[in-house]
Amino acid sequence: MVTGMEFVKGGVCAAKGFKAAGIHCGIRKNKTKKDLALIVSEKRAAAACVYTRNLVKGAPIGVTRAHVADGYAQAIVCNSGIANTCAADGMETANGMCNIAAQALGIAQEDIVVASTGVIGPSLPLTPIRAHIGELAAALSPSGSEDAAEAIMTTDTVKKEAAVSFQADGVECRIGGIAKGSGMIHPNMATMLVFVTTDCAISQEMLQRALSRDVVDSFNMVSIDGDTSTNDMVAVLANGMAENPKITEEGPAYTAFCQALAAVTRSLCRMLAADGEGATKLLDCTVSGAPDTATAKTAAKSVICSSLVKTAMFGADANWGRVLCALGYCGAPLDVNKIDVSFKSAAGEVAVCKNGAGIPFDEDSAKKILSEDDIQILIDLHSGDAGAQAWGCDLTYDYVKINGDYRT
Amino acid sequence: MVTGMEFVKGGVCAAKGFKAAGIHCGIRKNKTKKDLALIVSEKRAAAACVYTRNLVKGAPIGVTRAHVADGYAQAIVCNSGIANTCAADGMETANGMCNIAAQALGIAQEDIVVASTGVIGPSLPLTPIRAHIGELAAALSPSGSEDAAEAIMTTDTVKKEAAVSFQADGVECRIGGIAKGSGMIHPNMATMLVFVTTDCAISQEMLQRALSRDVVDSFNMVSIDGDTSTNDMVAVLANGMAENPKITEEGPAYTAFCQALAAVTRSLCRMLAADGEGATKLLDCTVSGAPDTATAKTAAKSVICSSLVKTAMFGADANWGRVLCALGYCGAPLDVNKIDVSFKSAAGEVAVCKNGAGIPFDEDSAKKILSEDDIQILIDLHSGDAGAQAWGCDLTYDYVKINGDYRT
Repeated sequence: MVTGMEFVKGGVCAAKGFKAAGIHCGIRKNKTKKDLALIVSEKRAAAACVYTRNLVKGAPIGVTRAHVADGYAQAIVCNSGIANTCAADGMETANGMCNIAAQALGIAQEDIVVASTGVIGPSLPLTPIRAHIGELAAALSPSGSEDAAEAIMTTDTVKKEAAVSFQADGVECRIGGIAKGSGMIHPNMATMLVFVTTDCAISQEMLQRALSRDVVDSFNMVSIDGDTSTNDMVAVLANGMAENPKITEEGPAYTAFCQALAAVTRSLCRMLAADGEGATKLLDCTVSGAPDTATAKTAAKSVICSSLVKTAMFGADANWGRVLCALGYCGAPLDVNKIDVSFKSAAGEVAVCKNGAGIPFDEDSAKKILSEDDIQILIDLHSGDAGAQAWGCDLTYDYVKINGDYRT
Repeated sequence: MVTGMEFVKGGVCAAKGFKAAGIHCGIRKNKTKKDLALIVSEKRAAAACVYTRNLVKGAPIGVTRAHVADGYAQAIVCNSGIANTCAADGMETANGMCNIAAQALGIAQEDIVVASTGVIGPSLPLTPIRAHIGELAAALSPSGSEDAAEAIMTTDTVKKEAAVSFQADGVECRIGGIAKGSGMIHPNMATMLVFVTTDCAISQEMLQRALSRDVVDSFNMVSIDGDTSTNDMVAVLANGMAENPKITEEGPAYTAFCQALAAVTRSLCRMLAADGEGATKLLDCTVSGAPDTATAKTAAKSVICSSLVKTAMFGADANWGRVLCALGYCGAPLDVNKIDVSFKSAAGEVAVCKNGAGIPFDEDSAKKILSEDDIQILIDLHSGDAGAQAWGCDLTYDYVKINGDYRT
C-alpha cells in the first residue's frame, strides 16, 4: 500500500457527495432479489468510461457512450435481470430508462449513465422501473453502496465493494466502487459492470487517461470463462468535491490518483475472479522473467483461461504439465526449456517444474497448498525483466450447473 | 456420399497389407486397459504427417518428424498412459521405443512413427514395452484395428474407427483410420492422435498435400475444451498395394482420394467431438452466408468454443443470445444485425434469432430439439456465399469430474 493511502468503508459512496440505492422493482420474478440500482452525485461530475469490445453490444452501451461524449455525467442507473441486448426496442428502452431516472432526480437525461445486465434477447419492461423510481430516489443514501452493489448482481454470490482514501496535493480524497460479474468475463475488453466514484478534482481528459491505462492491467487481466460479454462497462464519476487543486496533467497528484484507482480496481478484480460462476478458488497467475509485458500478459492469461488448469486447481491436483501446455500454445514465442513453475498459497509453496521439466516434489504438501481457496501460480520465464498478473478461478460442477439452465 | 465410395469395416486395417494390434503391457496400472498399439504395413509406405503447434512438444513428435523426413515409414507404435513430454529423458525414450519396435518387426528404426499420449511430466518406462513387444508383434492381425484403437484411448469412452472404399482410375482402393482424443482438443493445430492407412498408390508429395489441406477443414475445426495438446499428430501411411496407377498429380484420381480421406476424417471428427470429455451431446455448428471462408471458420469455432453456449446445450436451453455473443467477440468483422440463428436435431428445427434479434419461438419444442444428442447450430450471416463447419460438444459436470483429478 502506498504511503498515505488506506482502505475505507463506503464503497461507491465513500467519496464526498455521492449517494446510492438499490431496490426490487419487479424486473426479476424473485421479490427478494434487488434489480434496480441508482448512484447519484450531488454535483455534475467528470465522467470516463470503457466498454465491451464485443460487436454485439447492449443498447445501454450506445446510449451511455452518447451521454458521456461531453465528458460529464451525474447519475448511474442500472438494472439486473434483463440485458436489454438484441431486443428490437433496445435503444428506445435504454433512452426511456434514462428519461425516467432524469425526471425523478431533476437532472438532464444526457447526464445519465445507463447499464443493464442479465439475459440477452427479451425486451426490458419500463413499467416496473417507472412505477418504482420514486421509491428508489427516496432511498438514496450515503450508506447505500451495499444496496446498489446487491441490485446489480446476477449470478454473483457476494456483493463487491472497495474504497480507499488518498492524498492529492495534501488534500484527502476518496475513491470507491462497486462491481458485478461472475460469468462471461474474459480479457481483451472492458469486462463486467464496474461503477467507481471519486471526490477528487480531476479533468475529464486525465480521468479517461487514468481509467484507460488502468483497465489494461486490471479488468482486462481477469477471466472467468473466456466469454466476452455484450453489456459490460467500467464508468468513473469524479465530482471534485474534495476540493483538491484540480488534476489537469501528469505529476505527483495524478500518480497518487492512479495508485488509488489501481488499489480499488485490483481489489474488485480479485473479488470478481474469486466469485467466478461456481468458483471455489481464486487463481492468481504471476508471470515474471518475460522479454516484454505483452508476452507476460499473453502467458498469464493463457494459463488462467485453460479449462484443464482450472479443473486441475478445482481438484487440488498439482498437474503442472497443463500449465506448461497452456504456456506452449499461448501464441507468444517462449523458450519452453527455461520455464520454472511453482504453486503457492497460505499453506506454503512448492516448486514443480524447472527448466521446462518436472522435478520431484511432495504430492501431499502440494495437495495441501492447492486445497486453499487463494492459489498463486508462479511462472518464471527466465527470458527478461517484464512481468504480468492475471486473475481467474477454478472450473467446477457448479459452473456447469449455473450455466446449464440460466434462463429458468 | 460420392459415387463409388462406401463405408467399410476394418478401420486402420481396412486397406490391403495393414495389420494392427493392441495390448496391455503395463504402462498403466489398470490391467484391463490396453496401453500399447502397433500398426504395420506389409510394404514400406509413403508417409505424411501433421503435428501439434504447441511450443511444448512431446518427445515423440521430434523423433517422428525426423523419421518421416525421407517421406516413408512402415509402422506406427503408440502408447497411452504417459505422454513422454517434459521428461528429461524424453528423446532417449522415444528413440528407445522405436528401436524396440524395429527389432521386433525386423525393419529399420527410421521407418517407425512413434506417438505417446497421457500425463505430461513423468518418464515413460521402456521396460514394459521391451517385455511385451514380442507378444504385441505376435498379435498383429488384419482384424486388429479395434484393439489398436482401444490401446490409444485415454479418457475416451469409445473406440474411434472409420474406413471407406473408393475408386482411383477404376481400381478399388481403401482408406481407414483410428483416432483418440477426448480433452485438450482445439482448433488451429493438428490435434489428437489419428492414424490413417491406405493401399492407394500415391506419391509422398501428393499424400502430404492431401493431408495438409484436409486437416484445415476437419481436425482443426474440432474443439473440446480450447486446450491445444502437446503430443498430437495425424499420420497417414500409403503402401500402394491396391496397385492403382500411382497418383502423382492433381486430377480425378487425386480428387477421389481426397474425398475418401475427407469421408474418413469427417467421421472421426464427429466421433471425437461426440466423445469429448464428459460430453453428452455432439454440437455441429454450420455457418453460411459468410463473406469468406476465414470469417465462416472463425465464427463457427467461436460458437463451438464458448463455455456458455456449451453449458446451455448441456441444459437443452435455447439461449441463442450466447450464440450471438460468441459471434460478436469472435474477432471477425460481422454485421451482427444480419445474423439468423436456428437449432436443429432429429426432433426438428427451430428458428430463434432473425436479423440479430430474438423472434418468438415455442420453448417446449426448442427444449425437445435440444434434448437430442446430435445438435446442429445453424448460422446464416447473410453477407456472402462462404461457409464452414465446426464440431464440438457440451460442457458438463463430468468434464469437471474427469479433469478435476486426472492423475489419480
